[in-house]
Amino acid sequence: MSARFHTTYHIRCPAEEIEARARGIAVEQSVEMPLAAIEDARILEDIVGQVAGITDLGNGVFEVRIALAIATVGEDAGQMLNMILGNTSMHACVSLVDVEIPPVFAAIFGGPRHGLDGLRARLGAGRRPLTATAIKPQGLPVPALADLGHRLALGGLDFIKDDHSHADQAFSPFVARVPAIAAAVRRAVALTGHPTRYVPMLCGDWGRMQAQLRLCRECGIDTVMMAPMLSGVATLQAIARDWPEMAILAHPSMTGGGQIAPDLLFGKLFRLWGADALIFANFGGRFGFSGAMCRSLSDHALAPLHGLRTSTPTPAGGMELARVPALLDFFGRDVMLLIGGSLLLAKERIPQEGAAFHRAVATYFA
Amino acid sequence: MSARFHTTYHIRCPAEEIEARARGIAVEQSVEMPLAAIEDARILEDIVGQVAGITDLGNGVFEVRIALAIATVGEDAGQMLNMILGNTSMHACVSLVDVEIPPVFAAIFGGPRHGLDGLRARLGAGRRPLTATAIKPQGLPVPALADLGHRLALGGLDFIKDDHSHADQAFSPFVARVPAIAAAVRRAVALTGHPTRYVPMLCGDWGRMQAQLRLCRECGIDTVMMAPMLSGVATLQAIARDWPEMAILAHPSMTGGGQIAPDLLFGKLFRLWGADALIFANFGGRFGFSGAMCRSLSDHALAPLHGLRTSTPTPAGGMELARVPALLDFFGRDVMLLIGGSLLLAKERIPQEGAAFHRAVATYFA
Repeated sequence: MSARFHTTYHIRCPAEEIEARARGIAVEQSVEMPLAAIEDARILEDIVGQVAGITDLGNGVFEVRIALAIATVGEDAGQMLNMILGNTSMHACVSLVDVEIPPVFAAIFGGPRHGLDGLRARLGAGRRPLTATAIKPQGLPVPALADLGHRLALGGLDFIKDDHSHADQAFSPFVARVPAIAAAVRRAVALTGHPTRYVPMLCGDWGRMQAQLRLCRECGIDTVMMAPMLSGVATLQAIARDWPEMAILAHPSMTGGGQIAPDLLFGKLFRLWGADALIFANFGGRFGFSGAMCRSLSDHALAPLHGLRTSTPTPAGGMELARVPALLDFFGRDVMLLIGGSLLLAKERIPQEGAAFHRAVATYFA
Repeated sequence: MSARFHTTYHIRCPAEEIEARARGIAVEQSVEMPLAAIEDARILEDIVGQVAGITDLGNGVFEVRIALAIATVGEDAGQMLNMILGNTSMHACVSLVDVEIPPVFAAIFGGPRHGLDGLRARLGAGRRPLTATAIKPQGLPVPALADLGHRLALGGLDFIKDDHSHADQAFSPFVARVPAIAAAVRRAVALTGHPTRYVPMLCGDWGRMQAQLRLCRECGIDTVMMAPMLSGVATLQAIARDWPEMAILAHPSMTGGGQIAPDLLFGKLFRLWGADALIFANFGGRFGFSGAMCRSLSDHALAPLHGLRTSTPTPAGGMELARVPALLDFFGRDVMLLIGGSLLLAKERIPQEGAAFHRAVATYFA
């Protein structure tokens, strides 16, 4: 029971408080009780968190490393999140910046079932970067969404995903929307010859989601999207575990403004728990993450990690066709570029604009 | 489709940016695309979010009210969270401070199935405040946990909950732990005559949780705990919907440092979605929330809301017996006091200390 893994936090506090704060996190994230009340020596030795290091980063910020017991995580992604941040999330001045992934976690969670290589193989995409777009806006009736999916697919893109706001609303219920869009995309695929994937957004509890997954399978769909921090990370784990044929795009809804560093959350944790592609808010778009953070996220997603498949970095959030060369220079070929809203500005020329986007990406490294 | 509800955010930004920021949130939390690309006039009129008001709060903080379309929420708590914060959570300078609950949301989600009055009725507790404690630490073998549950129950407390770190670990698997503690608490109940409830912590995806709920029912358990922001708020909704006999204690793990104001998240949203009791980090304990925030949380949980049952404010997190009078003076009688770790410091005198705690609470307003 004594094997441990390290978690790393950044804490903003007065220097004279940092040692107590570090000890506080070590206790909060393990036994959450006064150590004096613990009578079993094995708990003190094997279960209570330990402060492994404190570094002054300057400007009132300290880096604290805690050694937590691997045994406390069990085999549940939700419990892992509970142990690495859980109650400590309620401290506004603390962020979780790194988590060591020991081999046993890789064995338990298994990582992506397809990964970047698996997605490329399905698409016959060789080693090129991938393309994606989104069907928007919510509120359109199903025939209009299907028509839009058809026109986007005529552009020969790799993935056409639901907007993350498509849930199970009365104006486009899941059971009506998904078969209609899947059929419309299939008709376009018959014309283009490119095996474009339509990617529905899953929502609700795991029971509802499984019904949605069954419908997806009936429609010939092999890729789905879900938001791990909205639906619960155990749900991401459950899809990867119980529906291994489904590739999973992780959406960033509810991932927060940095209380868990995005490079860690997406590049390490979502990957560990089974996401095949990681949609994240890119620098220079509508959100405030830095280029360095996005680079680190991509590096994590693609780094060797106990034999786990790589996950596909998918920068998004206000991207435009004109930025494609700069984005590919920055991220390299192991990336999926997602352009949503700005593609839709082309209106009646959506197929042509989509084709231009796909061509720009697919041929950049050719 | 044009009915709307208001969401309120606090935004820290330069004054010259606030109008654009407000419009940005209105779009992000509805259609998430350039409005110029929307050709359907009904979408612009009925679905796109609208800025309903901007107030300068001083010190560089603005309050922004957005009118979102009710129709975009559907009937899913997860989708509601997706629409009220979702992508905007990725902006570090924005917090969600209020959400209007229109009658239709009360009708869809239904609120607590038992609420404070239901918990009191089960316990024969009249109108008195309730008591709770926790079985800690994780890592103890099942017989030791059961023994601790027995001794805590001998004190005649109302609720004895699992520590939130009890998941399904090898050292105390759910299927072994829960029946053993339930039996131990039952033996104590036979001695005390007080119907103390043992409250297991649910974990994992909804499939696993339903298996856990079935086992709970077999063990005669009628109250469970789960962490909505860890397991997904749709899972809270699912328990209330599919297991209406189970009272639900909501745990604050992963509720964050204030990006969703706790009075809103616990007092309004968790209540709306079905939580019968709201465990929150009290002021003056290990966490940084203010007395005013805790008061507001309690006020929200108990306020009239379209006929929904009240939810039980349950302040916790470093509470002690000596603070009981002050806490009851502060919160009044409509509260559950939760003292965890400090009760365990009594060690061999745990039953007596528990009894003293319960007596202090139960008789305070007598």
